[in-house]
Amino acid sequence: MSAKRIIVIGGSAAGPKAASRARRMDENAEITIYQKASDLSMASCGYPYYIGGFFNDRDQLLCSPAGVVRDSKFFWNAKKITTKVKHEVTAINRKEKVIEYINMVTGEKGAAEYDKLILATGATPRRPPVPGIELKGITTLQSLPDADYLRKIRDEGKIKKAVVIGGGLIGIETCEALHLAGIEITIVELLPQLLTFLDQQMARLVEKYVQSKANVILQNGVSAFIGENGQLTAVKLQNGTEIPCDLAVIAIGVVPNTKLAKEAGLDIGKTGGILVNDYMQTSDPDIYAGGDCIEAVNIISKKPVHAPYGDLANLQGRIAGENVIAGNTAKFPGTIQTGICKVFEYGVGATGLSEQNAVRNGFTNLETVVNASLDKPGFMQGKLLITKLVVDKSSKKILGAQVIGPGEVSKQLAIWAMAIQAGFTVDQMVNSDLPYAPPFSLAIDHSIATAHIIQNKLNGFFKGISAEELKEKIENKQSILLLDVRNANEYEQMRLGIGEKLIPLGQIRSRLSELPEDKNAEIVTWCKISLRGYEAALILQANGYTNVKVLEGGLMAWPFAREK
Amino acid sequence: MSAKRIIVIGGSAAGPKAASRARRMDENAEITIYQKASDLSMASCGYPYYIGGFFNDRDQLLCSPAGVVRDSKFFWNAKKITTKVKHEVTAINRKEKVIEYINMVTGEKGAAEYDKLILATGATPRRPPVPGIELKGITTLQSLPDADYLRKIRDEGKIKKAVVIGGGLIGIETCEALHLAGIEITIVELLPQLLTFLDQQMARLVEKYVQSKANVILQNGVSAFIGENGQLTAVKLQNGTEIPCDLAVIAIGVVPNTKLAKEAGLDIGKTGGILVNDYMQTSDPDIYAGGDCIEAVNIISKKPVHAPYGDLANLQGRIAGENVIAGNTAKFPGTIQTGICKVFEYGVGATGLSEQNAVRNGFTNLETVVNASLDKPGFMQGKLLITKLVVDKSSKKILGAQVIGPGEVSKQLAIWAMAIQAGFTVDQMVNSDLPYAPPFSLAIDHSIATAHIIQNKLNGFFKGISAEELKEKIENKQSILLLDVRNANEYEQMRLGIGEKLIPLGQIRSRLSELPEDKNAEIVTWCKISLRGYEAALILQANGYTNVKVLEGGLMAWPFAREK
Repeated sequence: MSAKRIIVIGGSAAGPKAASRARRMDENAEITIYQKASDLSMASCGYPYYIGGFFNDRDQLLCSPAGVVRDSKFFWNAKKITTKVKHEVTAINRKEKVIEYINMVTGEKGAAEYDKLILATGATPRRPPVPGIELKGITTLQSLPDADYLRKIRDEGKIKKAVVIGGGLIGIETCEALHLAGIEITIVELLPQLLTFLDQQMARLVEKYVQSKANVILQNGVSAFIGENGQLTAVKLQNGTEIPCDLAVIAIGVVPNTKLAKEAGLDIGKTGGILVNDYMQTSDPDIYAGGDCIEAVNIISKKPVHAPYGDLANLQGRIAGENVIAGNTAKFPGTIQTGICKVFEYGVGATGLSEQNAVRNGFTNLETVVNASLDKPGFMQGKLLITKLVVDKSSKKILGAQVIGPGEVSKQLAIWAMAIQAGFTVDQMVNSDLPYAPPFSLAIDHSIATAHIIQNKLNGFFKGISAEELKEKIENKQSILLLDVRNANEYEQMRLGIGEKLIPLGQIRSRLSELPEDKNAEIVTWCKISLRGYEAALILQANGYTNVKVLEGGLMAWPFAREK
Repeated sequence: MSAKRIIVIGGSAAGPKAASRARRMDENAEITIYQKASDLSMASCGYPYYIGGFFNDRDQLLCSPAGVVRDSKFFWNAKKITTKVKHEVTAINRKEKVIEYINMVTGEKGAAEYDKLILATGATPRRPPVPGIELKGITTLQSLPDADYLRKIRDEGKIKKAVVIGGGLIGIETCEALHLAGIEITIVELLPQLLTFLDQQMARLVEKYVQSKANVILQNGVSAFIGENGQLTAVKLQNGTEIPCDLAVIAIGVVPNTKLAKEAGLDIGKTGGILVNDYMQTSDPDIYAGGDCIEAVNIISKKPVHAPYGDLANLQGRIAGENVIAGNTAKFPGTIQTGICKVFEYGVGATGLSEQNAVRNGFTNLETVVNASLDKPGFMQGKLLITKLVVDKSSKKILGAQVIGPGEVSKQLAIWAMAIQAGFTVDQMVNSDLPYAPPFSLAIDHSIATAHIIQNKLNGFFKGISAEELKEKIENKQSILLLDVRNANEYEQMRLGIGEKLIPLGQIRSRLSELPEDKNAEIVTWCKISLRGYEAALILQANGYTNVKVLEGGLMAWPFAREK
């Protein structure tokens, strides 16, 4: 039998991973990667940290863990994989099983036969179709040249003001990077919130934090880029505002690169990505695909999604690489769209469905909770975590979790991601046996405490109210007894100042006479994180009050301005 | 109906948690905690960090998250729970449902009736029955007075040498605390390894690291404490060695406190803990128990275990507290014995079964792997993680994981703990959708990479060899071709020096002629972490070599001395 010919189109994440896996599965296969860019295996998720100056050696973006740059020589020597950089594949002839390419340096054209083909063509940043988009000073952050351009701006230190268009993950990461470069940033987002994988209350908490570092403008888009002599001087918004700046970074999402696939007649999914089955196989059994160019399936909603995450690209590439050699032996189970980003000192992320996403996907019977606590004991310098958990009320199945804060967000998300993938219910989560010691967690880990609270809620022990609901009620001048149950000195240091009465938890039982006579009066209780708020609510309920609610997450999860 | 009378014996972790949960379930119950010590709700897992000077305010060991000391006044005001400190319960009269107690200050005796009783009597440190045990300068680290004693030693700075007897979790934490106090430490352990929840190779890696901070003596016990004028001056070992010291801390495990339960005729389990069912109910349906005094069940082995962990005590207390009020509504699913400790800059922990523990529990068909990699990319200052994974070969079920290193051990253990509790197989783990961004993890998280490697092993793609097996073969002068496949400069900086040949991975294909003609010759390959070692093995196998093994975890997991 002659050697199997494997062609991989794309040399960033999924492509090299697929090629490497194929090599490990078959030492004799002829494996070739075609790559439009001049670099291979770039750690593209690392670009914001290179731009922000977390490290200065550009080679680290291209290095293997052993410190060798992953160039064509490396791929050939270490992996016997041929790499053709600066080569664009222009067509796939499925009948003949041939690809056509052009050498972008020499203009030379050629063709190559394949037994199996893997598409890892990635995605391209969206650009708003507005006047001035061609001006100098406007960029995206996707390619290594983009990263080089922005790093140069950092190093030169001339630019003082920049606008980041798009308040998603990349926009927020770019904002941090440029802020660290000493540039004054304005983030412009079309939607009413940043980071749409978060529910609004959670996003507002992040927004409040980001506002301490950058200007945030919501519900506004770009109507034009304004320039002088071909150079950007301002961004004009849809409401007419002009923001002077020398730099604009566009980060309004990406579109899967499917031109080749479409022209070859492969099926494209509803979300615009290449359609693949669990084996990462396209509608042509000899063609596989993975990474940002495909459409994946969300495990919880069972709906197709475009999920351009670097980790999934690697996992999908590994599967495609195995299957082109071994036949369809490896399966991709789908995604729960776990994502995380660093926002200055905060971690911000989500896994599974947010409440708004669950509703959009037809889940009608939800329970949610917001919990705030430290990640470790105060005496071990514990830091704040705020989690919103979303649960299906009838099955008690955990559907999603959002976690933000300076605490160990990544660990919390990993715990929830595992719980969701396992199909855990709240009752299965409440007694989890997680690693505990004071340098690492609280005796009852934040994730378990969150499960406890929602279990109490599901069991009807208490009713919660979100900060937004409470705000609305107050704005509508509803008559509510607002009860802060912390100590007087805590109240002196920090308080909402929305008309609340202070009765410390320890005094509630003896000061019941100060409460409304009407046992059906609406009462909302809270403390710093609402644990004492919960205990206060239970005392009131036991004393006959029927309409008591706990402000979820307490003061720590209040996303609006406070009196102090 | 009159108020339910709940009596809780024990005021450390499980007891106060049970009492608090009972209060939240029933505002009208009469709840009383009897506590021998003078303090309540002590954060006893925090003692080593108080002693080590991580924080100086002793009250932090006793405070609620809001900064209020949890004394009798706090329990009454905030929770309407009566606490009787310095009260020892001397007997339980199950027939009359009465406990008898003595006020340890006044000597006054009394009795109290209960409807439901909760035992949270904790455990007592073992003490070796050797001469001199009564000398001054010998202590355990379990109570707050113990912590005060050791903290005083730290603050006075007079003691220069100490011996820690016992290389388990508490021993190791004590070692760190005293080392930070500037005291020269010798750890003495009776068994051939430290931290018996680890397999030997993993324990050796920890030992190697600890030896940079303290003297470690294995396979040796204490035969006597030697003193002058009633003060300890040396510890004498079973082999006759005398170690001069002014302080000895005994940390050779704990024994559940079951005297009361035994005298009351309650069933005691095989491991010496009080027997309880899933509802934390003892053999008397009106008596519940939780925390360090009970026997739990290991979920994986289904065997009884004594699992004195602070987090489990809290979870068990919560269940007991709920069930005494609501009837048996809450269940404890058992433990997978997840544990973690901090050892200077290392995290060290395990969840599920170690290999040696699995064998002891009758698992005969195991696959294991040791994986070493960074927790994050090098450019984000990634730190080393070493994981040993234990899997049942036929079902591919994950049985246990041990993780050590300066990297984020706690997150890794949490991931594995969730996987094990979910009953995940390796195939379910390999495509986990975990949070990825460079500040938090590698594109393929260390846990997933570990699953990939063991999957490759289960699929027969490669054979591994542990450092210990290889060492033994070398000592037995077996003829093996030892192949380091790193680069020449890496080899210059660090190498095993056990007779290996250096052929960089990139040169193997062209230097096959340097390998033995005998295709059945035994070959062992490695690199820094053995990823390249794996690729080298695949190349050799593809070229007909039938007996190639990869040194698991590479140089990073080599627990013995290196040439450089």
